[in-house]
Formats: sequence, structure tokens, C-alpha cells
Amino acid sequence: MKHFLSGILFFTLSLLQAQSVASPSKKITLDFKLTAKGQPTYTVSYKNKDVVQESAMGIKLKEKPALDANFTILGTKNATFNESWKPVLGEQSSIVNHYNELTVSLIQNETNVKMNVIFRIFDEGIAFRYDFPKQTELNYFIISDEVTQFNLTENYKTFWIPGDFDSNEYEYNETKLSEIDNSKIDMNNGIGVKSIPGKHIVQSPLMMKSDAGLYVNIFEAAVVNYPVMHLNVDVNKYKLTAQLVPNAIGDKAYLQTPCVSPWRTIMISDDARDIVSSKMILNLNEPSKIEDTSWIKPMKYVGIWWEMHVGKSTWDYAGSQNATNFADAPKASGKHGATTENTKRYIDFAAKNGFDGVLVEGWNVGWEDWNGNWKEEVFDFTTPYPDFDIAAISAYAKSKNVKMIMHHETSGSVANYERHLDRAFENMVKYDYPAVKTGYVGKIIPRGEFHDGQTMVNHFNFVARRAADYKLMVNSHESSRPTGYGRTYPNYVAAEAARGNEFNAWSVGNPPMHETILPFTRLLGGPMDYTPGIFEIKMSYYDKSKTEQVHTTLAKQLALYVTMYSPIQMAADLLENYEKYPDAFQFIKDVAVDWDESKYLQAEPGDYLTVVRKAKGSESWFLGAITDENARESEIKLDFLTKGQKYKAIIYEDAKNADWKTNPIAYKIRTVTVTSKSKINLNLAPGGGTAISFELMN
Amino acid sequence: MKHFLSGILFFTLSLLQAQSVASPSKKITLDFKLTAKGQPTYTVSYKNKDVVQESAMGIKLKEKPALDANFTILGTKNATFNESWKPVLGEQSSIVNHYNELTVSLIQNETNVKMNVIFRIFDEGIAFRYDFPKQTELNYFIISDEVTQFNLTENYKTFWIPGDFDSNEYEYNETKLSEIDNSKIDMNNGIGVKSIPGKHIVQSPLMMKSDAGLYVNIFEAAVVNYPVMHLNVDVNKYKLTAQLVPNAIGDKAYLQTPCVSPWRTIMISDDARDIVSSKMILNLNEPSKIEDTSWIKPMKYVGIWWEMHVGKSTWDYAGSQNATNFADAPKASGKHGATTENTKRYIDFAAKNGFDGVLVEGWNVGWEDWNGNWKEEVFDFTTPYPDFDIAAISAYAKSKNVKMIMHHETSGSVANYERHLDRAFENMVKYDYPAVKTGYVGKIIPRGEFHDGQTMVNHFNFVARRAADYKLMVNSHESSRPTGYGRTYPNYVAAEAARGNEFNAWSVGNPPMHETILPFTRLLGGPMDYTPGIFEIKMSYYDKSKTEQVHTTLAKQLALYVTMYSPIQMAADLLENYEKYPDAFQFIKDVAVDWDESKYLQAEPGDYLTVVRKAKGSESWFLGAITDENARESEIKLDFLTKGQKYKAIIYEDAKNADWKTNPIAYKIRTVTVTSKSKINLNLAPGGGTAISFELMN
Repeated sequence: MKHFLSGILFFTLSLLQAQSVASPSKKITLDFKLTAKGQPTYTVSYKNKDVVQESAMGIKLKEKPALDANFTILGTKNATFNESWKPVLGEQSSIVNHYNELTVSLIQNETNVKMNVIFRIFDEGIAFRYDFPKQTELNYFIISDEVTQFNLTENYKTFWIPGDFDSNEYEYNETKLSEIDNSKIDMNNGIGVKSIPGKHIVQSPLMMKSDAGLYVNIFEAAVVNYPVMHLNVDVNKYKLTAQLVPNAIGDKAYLQTPCVSPWRTIMISDDARDIVSSKMILNLNEPSKIEDTSWIKPMKYVGIWWEMHVGKSTWDYAGSQNATNFADAPKASGKHGATTENTKRYIDFAAKNGFDGVLVEGWNVGWEDWNGNWKEEVFDFTTPYPDFDIAAISAYAKSKNVKMIMHHETSGSVANYERHLDRAFENMVKYDYPAVKTGYVGKIIPRGEFHDGQTMVNHFNFVARRAADYKLMVNSHESSRPTGYGRTYPNYVAAEAARGNEFNAWSVGNPPMHETILPFTRLLGGPMDYTPGIFEIKMSYYDKSKTEQVHTTLAKQLALYVTMYSPIQMAADLLENYEKYPDAFQFIKDVAVDWDESKYLQAEPGDYLTVVRKAKGSESWFLGAITDENARESEIKLDFLTKGQKYKAIIYEDAKNADWKTNPIAYKIRTVTVTSKSKINLNLAPGGGTAISFELMN
Repeated sequence: MKHFLSGILFFTLSLLQAQSVASPSKKITLDFKLTAKGQPTYTVSYKNKDVVQESAMGIKLKEKPALDANFTILGTKNATFNESWKPVLGEQSSIVNHYNELTVSLIQNETNVKMNVIFRIFDEGIAFRYDFPKQTELNYFIISDEVTQFNLTENYKTFWIPGDFDSNEYEYNETKLSEIDNSKIDMNNGIGVKSIPGKHIVQSPLMMKSDAGLYVNIFEAAVVNYPVMHLNVDVNKYKLTAQLVPNAIGDKAYLQTPCVSPWRTIMISDDARDIVSSKMILNLNEPSKIEDTSWIKPMKYVGIWWEMHVGKSTWDYAGSQNATNFADAPKASGKHGATTENTKRYIDFAAKNGFDGVLVEGWNVGWEDWNGNWKEEVFDFTTPYPDFDIAAISAYAKSKNVKMIMHHETSGSVANYERHLDRAFENMVKYDYPAVKTGYVGKIIPRGEFHDGQTMVNHFNFVARRAADYKLMVNSHESSRPTGYGRTYPNYVAAEAARGNEFNAWSVGNPPMHETILPFTRLLGGPMDYTPGIFEIKMSYYDKSKTEQVHTTLAKQLALYVTMYSPIQMAADLLENYEKYPDAFQFIKDVAVDWDESKYLQAEPGDYLTVVRKAKGSESWFLGAITDENARESEIKLDFLTKGQKYKAIIYEDAKNADWKTNPIAYKIRTVTVTSKSKINLNLAPGGGTAISFELMN
């Protein structure tokens, strides 16, 4: 790791009311100014044109004067930072963190409260945070609102989801900023718990594009001990204001100095690939606090999961889901998925096909009556069903060199989970489970809290930290979306925290453009456990009366392993479906999940994405290309390959007549020999994709 | 243990709208009736005179029809129950549980919801609860209010404290029912967190006395998965209505059928001793769920605690209490109480004087900044201060055959405590601490919850149950007041949960009548860790500028060991104070804390109390007699002693000129030989008391 602090440091007891700092490349400029009323404001320009006009900064406090006016500048400090660091797992083995920094030290008249605003100006965007130094004038405080604004200059095309306090599992809407309106969304979308506070509140990351082709993304980084920030949109003035998620009694955050807010981030580029490949969010997080990270490993896994989604088996032992108490001694229905026998079948499959892990959901007592009733004591996270012999399974998996992945569904009863957490993790250690998939389906307990409030943000982070004490990896589902904390706790390997593939099994599903947007939004904060790899696309395969289906071709499901970065990646379909298509399945067996390099070749949010990645510690490359509902042809150059070497390229692509809706499974596979000078034509069907493996030839 | 179920059981599909049941002695009669609107009501009479007039019953539900009208009687069932059971620790070795029971099965028109009302009529009072059977018509439900009324017939003299949702640490007010008014209380009373919902809401147990000398007590038993019930008083009509403590969003209780409400209890007698000696509350709780109770043992203990209250030492290492973060590496102030050396001094003292245990507060990191700021992460419950060598202390205590008592102050951050609970208990097991004193000073986290809400009731009970898994005893401070759950989890040995002796050190304190009321109120639900035994009564002893003092004589402090039942009883004063008065201290050394028999000889709430108790498994008796601010003389017969035996009676009494205010330490000790035919004169000074030990002579 290289680390150099350079540039000129200076600190001036200045009364200058304005400061300006450019990014290292000079493309982006940040201007800070105090208004006549002493309110801090900022302006951002890209290539000398304003992208964010003068925008207010500050916070409001409960029972104390607001920190949004009457400030004087005590001094300013400039610095340049340029280092590279190595993520434990990642899209690339080394990440450059290069920015110019401006710290503005403010003091408020009369209260004498000191507050700093820290800006970091990167080549792909800017970030700022509020910093509250330790001081007698401000010790404990409660944030009642954040004043932060983002005053945009025009009516961007926007990819948005409602600013729901409890769910981020929405399809994206693609409209103008002026057309944002949560009341117009079809809420028959399969989401169980919804808490939408207003018509014009949307979630971040918010991806936008101007008519002139400028890409702007508003997000946040390092959300630690703070609620999630949604955005309240003034649809007439294109002015966005921070909307913090409240707690049960309406407060936003409880803080004590010294402390900082999360970073508010604005990425800007005229090339969409700069956004999708940016590591700015990760860079804004603290380095790893885990010293020995040798136990944090990438995992490709199969699991007892999709079979419940398609109705072949059940999570619960009784197969009833009828609110019977377990105390009433439910009888086995014969449909229970998580049996010892079935688990061994998955272990055998994993061992045979080179998978690292097996996830089993529904293994533990409680699933007869777990969902939808705000019930506090559902699971104890340690008691297996009578037909799940955890000791025997653990021993069997060990004998096959397969790792078991634990499942902890909390049903939103976080109080209950925290009460049991140590015992649950001890149970994992006892049975040699190195990773846990957590779940938060349902209204939160403590009652009145939301999934995205400070309490829950702290919970998700706490679980990661506690898991690290036990050397366990965490993959959270239905959590608040990550904002780069995986850099600080690299055992927090992935999250769902967006609309995953599962919605395709039993709801209106995810439209073909969905996976082309996620890399510009959800994935900026960290890996997503999207659970790709569904081969039997249509649910009518299982039940003729069903019309639900995955909204992609089979080839696109393969491509998602590359486009949807995660170091823990599921082959989600039933084992028997993989056995029916062994040639296509070969790609899933081959594809890496941890990388030395990644290059985004083509990218347009809502339309398409093509990325190539070099497997960690290997000469193999993998390509994923996906499209939305439109067919797409393009030619790509293979100049990322090592010069002078020959590669065997196996191309998994849509068949000529493939179509996500009418003919989704049709694929073809061809093998060609290529070099860095070769070109390959990508032919994507509507809702289709292409996956390619490049293997160095000797 | 004897157990016999007798009487005639019958179940009738009856349309009778009224039912009447008498207590075994026939003194008390309960009448049940449905009104014309189908509302369940009850009436209670004592010696053929109405004490509770027709009073409404029922509950209101959130988002569902109220269960307080439109009922029809499906049937009724009568039964008689008479057993005796042996508490693990207690005032007596065997408790008789004898009552007549009436179950009224109701069905609501239109909704078809079934609800039963169960009455138990004891000789000293009646109890009833709502029972919600498992049914398709009612599964999950949220209680928004309880309708239960207590329509009294006259303007009783009442011993009341405000119906604060967060604190039960008030002095009692002695007024007529009509004069109850929380707005008239002097709130400069040393209570940190107050949440008083209205002028006329008071707490239960509510002790009352009529002009004619009838004693009435309204309370509840077996508060499990339900909030505490306060009482909303109609001061004109003497009508009391249940006021359940809400949660953060205003809901009262989340329940799922089958379930029951706590018992609502009304004790009635024309002899105050029947109330104070009643075991009705314990009897209404479930028998012990702990099979092996051999590890649950009574304890007399000393501790590092009062020295902080009087300002001799500090809880925190830095001695600052100035909100410095521990991360800033506080330096030892030299005033820290919980040092290894000081702890060893207490262990030596305990070993020398026959005490079972030593409590140490302030042993763990966090006390520099723990209180008053709603801070979530204060303590981790496992990390000792650098000057507290827990391993060495544990070994030293073991070598001296002394047990250490752990202290877990949560500062109200229950979420944080539950997160750490297993580790905290494992730490106790590791270092051989058999008991924990928990503390809940401060506003509750999860924020918005109250000390007396369902969430917290569940927490206190959960801690007891979890502690049982580790074979640990619990003594909770600042918890909701117990309602007999110590029968079900006998390791929940005591609680503070009322205004304890500590208030005398730094506030207006507890008036002399205080300890004469507690046995009629707080102690009905379970033992109180009042921490008696203060010999240096006046705080001016430590600091001439101080005017605070204990509001009793020294002799009364001795008597409290007998009048204030607890199986875990502290000798709270500084060791050096005991060494100054070795003759008086002898009583504390001698007195038992677990009993075979207890007899209340004299009792009048607010005035006086005299009780004698026979030590468990011993022929020794102990007497405690206390008075309020008035001097009191009386003669007592010793007919409780075994006939034909001689006893050495050591009488610890107020000196002639003793007075709690002007001359509190003046005591005298005399020794006489007595038999069951003897009489003894009790001469109690204002705020005074007498303690006597009776030892069998060979």
C-alpha cells in the first residue's frame, strides 16, 4: 500500500467568505460560501458549468439553536490526498484514493458552537460532511432535520424509487425530475412493508442524466450512527433536500461530539462509465478495522431457497404458514425444504461442481408463524427443526470440503435478534458455518423504528462488527443499503438491500432494465446478493396457472455474474435445472467472484452495461453484457487482454430468436480463440445478455 | 408440597346474566353481571357491604372492535383450589393458596370473538383477569386501552404516588382520594427521569383506608408480556380506571391468542395485618419454572456503594463525571471506590463478620459519562477499570469464602444491555459472581419506551429468565415494580422499584412514615432491596455543609432488616461506621434473611408496623418494630415463641432521648430472658424502631 500526503497545507485565521477547490483533473470545481446571513453554502461545477447551484448546508437541532446560519469562518485548510489501498475482496485488487480536501472551520455567533464542513473533490465527484469537534458548547445533541440541499440546474431524466423508510425493494421509475410522484406508482409490487412519507421523496443513490448527456448521481458514504438520507424533491425547482429517516418519536439522530455526519456525495461525468466504475464511496469510508482478514473469503454457493420461492417446498416444517404456534407440535408436511437429506443433496452438488458453500433457509424452528404480525419472539436462531440434523450436516459438509451458510431471518424483530446474537454466532462457530445471511422481512421491533433509521443503521453495522469478533461473514437482506462500510468491516461482504431476483418468482418482478440501473445506484455502496442464475425462467414450468417469470433471457442470467459484482454469489436455481443445461451451467462453475481488475466497456443506465473483469490471481477474464427490453448489437475490442497471448473465449449468448418474454431460455455457446487485437460482436436479445470466459491458452 | 383440587366443577351453557361467588370464609363476595349492553361488570362486597360497586370490564383494541360490550355468556365454571407450596426463599416456608374460582366464558355478538373473565376469590381479596383463548376470530391484537374500573364507594384515605411511567421512586402522599393531584407535588425530590401523564393518575399498589377502618388495596399480579397498570382517578366519583403504560407509539400491548392479562387485584380487610401478610399476589403467579433451585440462596452483603452516595469516593475512575469520553484516557483521580485494594478490604470485612457477599459498583469502564444524556453505548458490562483486578478479586473472595455481587448499570440503555447480556453473564460465571444488581437510571433506549411499558416489563422478566440459564440471581434497581414473578423465576430474588434508602443521602429523603407504607404497597409484589443499616444518619458527618439525613433513628435502621423483607439484604453503611458501633452491628450480623414463619403483630399503613419472623431452619426469632414521625409505646406478647422454651432476647431500641431528627444515633441494648408467656414493652422514638433477636437457650 502506498500512502502519500502531498500538496500545500495551510491554515488561515481568515475572514474570507468564499473558498474554491478543483478536483485533481480540474474538471470539477467546488465553491464554498457563507451567505449574508452566515449560512454555509456550496456550488459545484463541471467543466466550468454549474451543476449544483448555490445550495444550503447545515442541520437543525432538537431543543437547541439550528446550525444553519449565523456562522463566521474561523479558518480554512486545504490538503491533497493520494494513496492506493487493497480491498480484501473487490472488483479490483488496488484502489486509488485521490482528492483535494477543503476544511472550513465555522463558529456560530452567540452560541459559539464550532462546526466544520469538510469537502473532498475527486475527479468523478465531490463529497462533504459536517464535522462537530469536541467542545464545551456542544456535547450531546439531537438532530431534528438536515438542511443540506442539492439545487440542480435542470430537469434531469431520473432513475428513482420512492423514499420509503422501510423498503428499498422497488422497481426503478425512469421519469423527469418534475414527474416524480410516489402516488402514481402501482403498489401491487410484492413489497410487504411500506412506509412512504410523501409524494416527492425518493431514495438515494439517485441517478440522473441531462438532455446534454451529463450524468449526475447523488448519494452518501459512511452512514455510521446516522439515519439513511432520502431526498425531498422540489419538482418545480429541481431542488433536492436531505430527508433523514426518523425514529419512533420523530427524532433523526442522537450524537455526541466529537462526531461527523455521513458524506453527502455528488458524482458528475459526461461518461456514464466514470460513475459506474467509481470507487469514491468506498474511498470515503474508513480503512479496515479488522487486522487479520485471512478468514474473509469469496464464496460461490447454492442453496435451499429458490425451491421455496417457486412453491416446490416450504420454509416451515408444518407446511402450513397458518399461524399455528410451534408449541402445538406441528407435524411434518413432507414439503419442508430444509431436511437433512435435501441438504446433503445440495452439499454433494456443491462438492461435485466446485461451489464453496450451501445456504439453507427454513432450518430453524419458527417458520409456521413468522411473518406479517409484528411478532417479537419468533426465532431463537439456534433450534433446528427435528428433520434438520445440524451436527450431521456440519460433519458431512466438512467431509466434502463444503462450507455451510447460516440463515438468520429476524422477521424485523431486531430486539429479539440482538438478544440472541451471541448465542446465534456461537452456534455458527460450533457447527463451522463461516457466513450468515440475515433477513429483515417485516415491521421493525423496537416498534416505531424504520429499516432506514439510525437505530437500524447501527444494528446492521453492529451485527457486522460482532460477527467479526467471531470471524464470521455477513450478507444482509432487507437491510438499509450499504454506503461503503464494507471497506471498514470487510466481513460485511454483501447485502441485498434492493429489489433482488426473488421478486421475479412471485410478483410483477423486475423489468428488463432493472439490472442495468442497479450498478449505477445500489451497487455504488457495496456488493449486492442479487441471486442470479435462474435457468427455468417461467414459473409456469412449476405451475401452469402461474404467469410470473424472470424478466431476462437465460444468457443474461449468466452475464449477471459479471455485471452484478458480489464476492458472495449464488447459483440460485434448483439443482435439477442446472443438470438439464450443463453447458450453460459451465459458465457459473467457471466464473470468478473476486477480481484483480474490472473495466466497464459500455454503460448507459436503464439501457445496457458491459464489463470485463480479471479473476483474482489468475489470467482468466470474464465478460458480462446485458441489455434492457431492447435488443442490442455492438462490437467490443479485446484490448484488455494481455498482449501477445492467446485466449480461449467461450461465448454464452442469446440464440437468434431469443426474447426474455417469448423465448427466454434459447441460448447458444461458441468457442473462439482470441488475442488482445481481436474484436467480438455482442448480440443481445430483448432482455438478453452475453457472458464470456477468456482462458489463457498455453 | 400438598396439592388438592376440590369443590364442585360444573360448566353450564347458561344464559344467566349474573353470577355470584364468595370467598372460602364467605367474608368477601364477588358478583359478575352483563349489562343490558352486554358489557361485563363486577361488584365486590365485604361482610355484605359493597366495597366496589358495579364496575366496567373489558379492553379496547387498535384497528379492531372493542371487547367491552355486546357480549353474551357462553357458560360459566366454578372451582375451588386449595394447596400449599414452598417458596425457594420467603417470609414463610409454606404458603397456602386457597380460593374459589369463577370462569365466565363470553362471546361477542357479530365478531364472535371469545373472551373469558376469570375470578379468584380469596379470603383477603379478589382477583380477575381477561383470558383470550386461541380462536380464528382473534389471533394477533393490539391493546389500545383497558376499560377495567374500580368504582369505590367512598372517599378513602389514600397512600399514593404519581402514576409516572418512568419512576416509582416517589415519597408517598397521604390524602383523601378526592385530594389526589400530581400537580401539587414538590418535584424537587431527587428523581432524575419523570414522565407523569396527568394530574389524577396514580400508581398501584394503591393502599386505602376508609373512615370506618376498612383497608382496601388495588394492585395487580403476574404482569407478564403486558404493561404496568396505573390508575386514573375520578376524584369526584371515587372511580378508578386502569391506565396502561404506552409504548413509543402509544400502543399498550401486543398480544397473540392464547393469552391472558395480568390479574387485577383488590384486597379488603378490616384488619390491616391481613393485607400486609397476604400472599395473594404470589399465589396468582405461576409456580417456579426453574427445576433445580439449589443455587438460589439468600445473601447478606456489604458493598462499595454508600461511600459514593456520601461523596467519599466516586463510581468513575477519573472522578470527573464531566462527560469525558473514556477514549480520551482518563487518569485515576485517587477517589475511585472500586479499587482492588478497597474491594479486598470489603471482602475481609465480609469474611470476618459472616456476610455472604460483596457488591462493587463502579468497577467497569464507562462511569465518566454515563448519565442524563440518553446515551446508547455507555457500558459493555465486561471491561473493568485498570485499578480493578477482577481475576485477583475473584480469587481472593473465593479464598475467603465470600461471593461477589456483580453490578450492571444500564443507564436505561436496555438495547445496549440486551446486546451484551450473554457476554456479561458469561463474564459473571467466569469470575464466579452468583448474583447481579442491575440498574436502569435514565431515559429508556429503545427511545420512546418507558420503564413501565410492555417492552420493559418483558425486558426485566427476560433478564431474570436468561440469568436462570446461567444460574445467576437478579436484584433489579429502577425496574418496574414486581408483581410476584419471583415465584415463577425464584432467581429474581429482589428489586428496588420504589424509593430506597439512597434518597436519604442526597435528596429531601424519605419521611419517617415511608417504611411503614412500603410493606402495604411495594412489598406485596416481592422483596425490596431497600439497603438499610445506615448508622451515620446525618450527612453533615461527611461534610458539614450538608443537611441531608436518613429520616430514622439508628435502631429503626436495624428494625428494617425484619420489617422490610428481602432474601438479599445489604448492610449499606461504611465499614468503619460499623466498627464504631460493634454492639449495634451485632444485630445485623445475627439477623436472618430467609424465614420459616412471619407474624405481623401490629400494622397500620403510614403509622407503624411490628413483625416477628422465625429464621429458616432455626429456632431463632427476630422482631422488627418501626414507627413514623410519632413516638409509640406498646406491649407485645411473645406467644409466638415455642412453649416451654427459654430464649435470650437482645433488644436494640431507641434511647430515651432518641429522635430521628435531633438525636438519631442514640440507642440502647438490653438482654433479657423470655418465654412464650413473656411480654415486652416497645418504646419507639419519633422516627424510631426496635429490633430484637430471640435465641433459644439450652
